Amino acid sequence: MENFAPTDRTRLRRLPQRGSFERDVVYRILDEGLVCHVGFVADGQPVVIPTGYGRANDTLYVHGSAASRMLRTLAGGVRVCVTVTLLDALVLARSAFHHSMNYRSVVVFGTAAAVEDAAEKWEALRVITEHIVPGRWSDVREPDESELKKTLVLKLPLAEASAKVRTGPPVDDEPDYELPVWAGELPLRIVPGEPVADPRLAPDSSPPANVVNYSRPR
Amino acid sequence: MENFAPTDRTRLRRLPQRGSFERDVVYRILDEGLVCHVGFVADGQPVVIPTGYGRANDTLYVHGSAASRMLRTLAGGVRVCVTVTLLDALVLARSAFHHSMNYRSVVVFGTAAAVEDAAEKWEALRVITEHIVPGRWSDVREPDESELKKTLVLKLPLAEASAKVRTGPPVDDEPDYELPVWAGELPLRIVPGEPVADPRLAPDSSPPANVVNYSRPR
Repeated sequence: MENFAPTDRTRLRRLPQRGSFERDVVYRILDEGLVCHVGFVADGQPVVIPTGYGRANDTLYVHGSAASRMLRTLAGGVRVCVTVTLLDALVLARSAFHHSMNYRSVVVFGTAAAVEDAAEKWEALRVITEHIVPGRWSDVREPDESELKKTLVLKLPLAEASAKVRTGPPVDDEPDYELPVWAGELPLRIVPGEPVADPRLAPDSSPPANVVNYSRPR
Repeated sequence: MENFAPTDRTRLRRLPQRGSFERDVVYRILDEGLVCHVGFVADGQPVVIPTGYGRANDTLYVHGSAASRMLRTLAGGVRVCVTVTLLDALVLARSAFHHSMNYRSVVVFGTAAAVEDAAEKWEALRVITEHIVPGRWSDVREPDESELKKTLVLKLPLAEASAKVRTGPPVDDEPDYELPVWAGELPLRIVPGEPVADPRLAPDSSPPANVVNYSRPR
């Protein structure tokens, strides 16, 4: 798997040791995340909208209503930036200045296009559904013709992308290590709660294993 | 507290029942979140970067290195969009089409400016630190002159903003309620783990109560 080539947009100028152009690193972050933030320009104004997504090989898919202003704008072939951020820990230093967070983030630049091919559109919807809960696609009713028409699927090639990762303890100024201040990391995780059954479900229904044992790939 | 006036940019055209212009709703989401996604345009390309933040009254503060390309670009008075997203649950429907997520998000539009006033800059850094861990500011060494110089603080007036909220069970098509498919919500929460002490901390140090009992305001 060939790594990403750094560009002026993806090269980190500060703290370059936090950057990665490895496809494997980038794809693991994309595959763990649930929400991406899509940035685009509308009437000269930057707009950032959260949405779900999915990845198949070197393509990122986003979908939504064919009536969505964002999706129609993006389908017009405008430049886009898609960012996925995983927050891993609060980093508590001895000085206010050195407080930080441990995180893994990916930034993708490119131009999105509407998926027109029926087979690719179907596959993209499968990928997006499987991204939310692996195995879900075969548990549910698949889209019908009218739903496919109402859905706009966009694809963004994963060609210009990079990851940024901070790990580890705080880095304090040398004299501050003498201060009587607790310092370290407070890990944060996204944890699923008990599944909440739909009120119209039969009372004896129990959630499937892929919901009960839900976790994100890591 | 006066609510936000809807604008062309913040008015929802689809599903307007999910939108809110109530300042209280918007501020609770901002106060619970830890990371915002800042969108701006650089050389015609939208860029979306995750970063920490804090809020004081009707102002959002973001800070970073005075050497940061993003912060210097923003300090130049360009248009910005700041988005905060809290993911509450996966919404699992009987049909692939109606899968969704429960979330609360805020979008803020405006123009950021560098904080020049020394007292306001100090207060902004306090607010950003307290946003991460309430009470932390008085536990740690405060910034010195050289750190203040190295830090760029930006402020964004909370004047044009809106929230978008989805709650509740999936909404399936009427015939699908007969299908033998488990449907409902899988709640997701951000949960702190055990604090990890800095390796250079004295072995008998124990983390303070605001770290041990950490939770986000909700």
